[in-house]
Amino acid sequence: MTVKLTLQVISLTGVGVGGWFSGILTERWKQRQTTCECQCINENTEDDLLCKIKRMPGLPIFGTVSAASPENKLSVLENDFVSRESSPVPRKPSRVSQIMKYGFPGIDTVRSFDDYVLSYDRRNRVPHWVFEHLTKETLVYNEFVDRSKCEFAEDTSVHPYFRSVNSDYRGTGFDRGHMAAAGNHRVCQKHVDQTFFLSNIAPQVGVGFNRHSWNRLEKYVRKMTKTYKNVYVCTGPLFLPRKDTDGKMYVRYQVIGANSVAVPTHFFKVVVAETDDYKLDMEAYVMPNQAIDDNTPLTVFQVPPESIERSAGLLFFDQLSKDKIRKINGRKSTMV
Amino acid sequence: MTVKLTLQVISLTGVGVGGWFSGILTERWKQRQTTCECQCINENTEDDLLCKIKRMPGLPIFGTVSAASPENKLSVLENDFVSRESSPVPRKPSRVSQIMKYGFPGIDTVRSFDDYVLSYDRRNRVPHWVFEHLTKETLVYNEFVDRSKCEFAEDTSVHPYFRSVNSDYRGTGFDRGHMAAAGNHRVCQKHVDQTFFLSNIAPQVGVGFNRHSWNRLEKYVRKMTKTYKNVYVCTGPLFLPRKDTDGKMYVRYQVIGANSVAVPTHFFKVVVAETDDYKLDMEAYVMPNQAIDDNTPLTVFQVPPESIERSAGLLFFDQLSKDKIRKINGRKSTMV
Repeated sequence: MTVKLTLQVISLTGVGVGGWFSGILTERWKQRQTTCECQCINENTEDDLLCKIKRMPGLPIFGTVSAASPENKLSVLENDFVSRESSPVPRKPSRVSQIMKYGFPGIDTVRSFDDYVLSYDRRNRVPHWVFEHLTKETLVYNEFVDRSKCEFAEDTSVHPYFRSVNSDYRGTGFDRGHMAAAGNHRVCQKHVDQTFFLSNIAPQVGVGFNRHSWNRLEKYVRKMTKTYKNVYVCTGPLFLPRKDTDGKMYVRYQVIGANSVAVPTHFFKVVVAETDDYKLDMEAYVMPNQAIDDNTPLTVFQVPPESIERSAGLLFFDQLSKDKIRKINGRKSTMV
Repeated sequence: MTVKLTLQVISLTGVGVGGWFSGILTERWKQRQTTCECQCINENTEDDLLCKIKRMPGLPIFGTVSAASPENKLSVLENDFVSRESSPVPRKPSRVSQIMKYGFPGIDTVRSFDDYVLSYDRRNRVPHWVFEHLTKETLVYNEFVDRSKCEFAEDTSVHPYFRSVNSDYRGTGFDRGHMAAAGNHRVCQKHVDQTFFLSNIAPQVGVGFNRHSWNRLEKYVRKMTKTYKNVYVCTGPLFLPRKDTDGKMYVRYQVIGANSVAVPTHFFKVVVAETDDYKLDMEAYVMPNQAIDDNTPLTVFQVPPESIERSAGLLFFDQLSKDKIRKINGRKSTMV
């Protein structure tokens, strides 16, 4: 009887503990599946966006948000977490949250359109950079896509203080030049339409530049999809200094319209192209925003990618191990 | 026997299911306690920072990361989540993650020091903005804090391509002008030391500006803590356009040193001061980066805060309901 009772108790305990463990495992599995859904349930909240962003590969948002002195790394950010093991009583607010109580004055304005990603320069009212991914398939001719139906439109997602509008360009002599090229987004009408938001536009010299040499460069990049499986392109404006008569270096650029839209001195394109067997070639171009002889070979405008990085304040393809790059501007890569 | 067996099966099942449920509850409870610790366990990882950032009030990082066209809001970001209810099979990567596969070229460089917060302009190698919070208590005289012990130092947390160094300033005639003022951070030596990182510095005209009128403005803001409980200050450079002889508007500024550090044409300060009974007064100043007659009253440099917002591409105190502001530049607020 005692043996039987003991056996029963053991089996009951076993089943109970087993059940308990499987409960834990079930819940953990569920947690893994749903962690993000939980946080993302309310669309448009910061948590939601944050959660989504977190899933995006290569987004170094927080690589650039940190405490700066090595000995003090993260100490301010950590204040909020010091007492996390203890009680659920309200914590002392961190120094950062005290300082920033009434809002951050500005963080990069990044926009994800259906077929390209853009960072908007609110001070200059032009893109900071745009990023595109081209393949043979996305560039296939589509008779239903009609560029002539497109109209340049204000990007109402940009605050009115920083938004460029069509009248800013009117009568200035400058073209509304695409950064993400219209011809790169022809899968459907909506994609090409989205390249006509003025947040994707910068003032470009028309004849000899936008309509000719810059267009030649855009076409050349599209053509790369014939030999490469994936073509990644980053495009943007530059504001380069020049030596003045006093021997000093100055940046000088025109601004147009009521919203003072900056006219870039130059534009850049940095391309990484991937072969079928995952070999990567990089090309980098800088063109002055001026009429260029249409017979000038594009290779004349090739520059070391690093020089664009320094001038633009950007790092291109920084998630890409540089030793994976086979050639830069047609030459065997010497990048380390 | 059958009844006994049935009872045993029922009790075993009951205990098993009970155990399973308590396992789930235990795990849920644990999850609630540890969600953040789990994510934050590895310092310096993106997840970690992300988790910490998430706790900071007022940080609108993701307010500015969104899909841009109203009809398409978040659709790209959502691609990753479309099939979240279905199976745990790998999901199709979102278009954004395809486009951005090899990394984002740049997102704002925000640094949280112990007593101020800074956004660094990687293109111009000067601060974009700095934010400080002053009180009577944090400004109290401390005999152990000695400014003369401080040395201007490179901010090694900034990528070498974008970092300003002491030699950039040498022989240029410009002072290394503090944005977060050294005199505002005297609680301990470390705080004042941190204002000497070159990421907090911009080239300023010395005599007549940095050492005189700008210093007068800094002192005036410190003095506000005598009448106000909390003083929030945002400071930064401006690059303002001027009409040239051809009648067109141009931005023109010098760049100095091997790293082309931009010499701002102007500097701004926007202050929100809070009384003991939570009334808020705002003041906004723009000063040209040039020798200014030291007898010029500071009120001469007052401007509508909106004009700075437009020129700088920033929004100040946007988490603050504007109808809470009692006075702007000494006049009854007419902001809506």
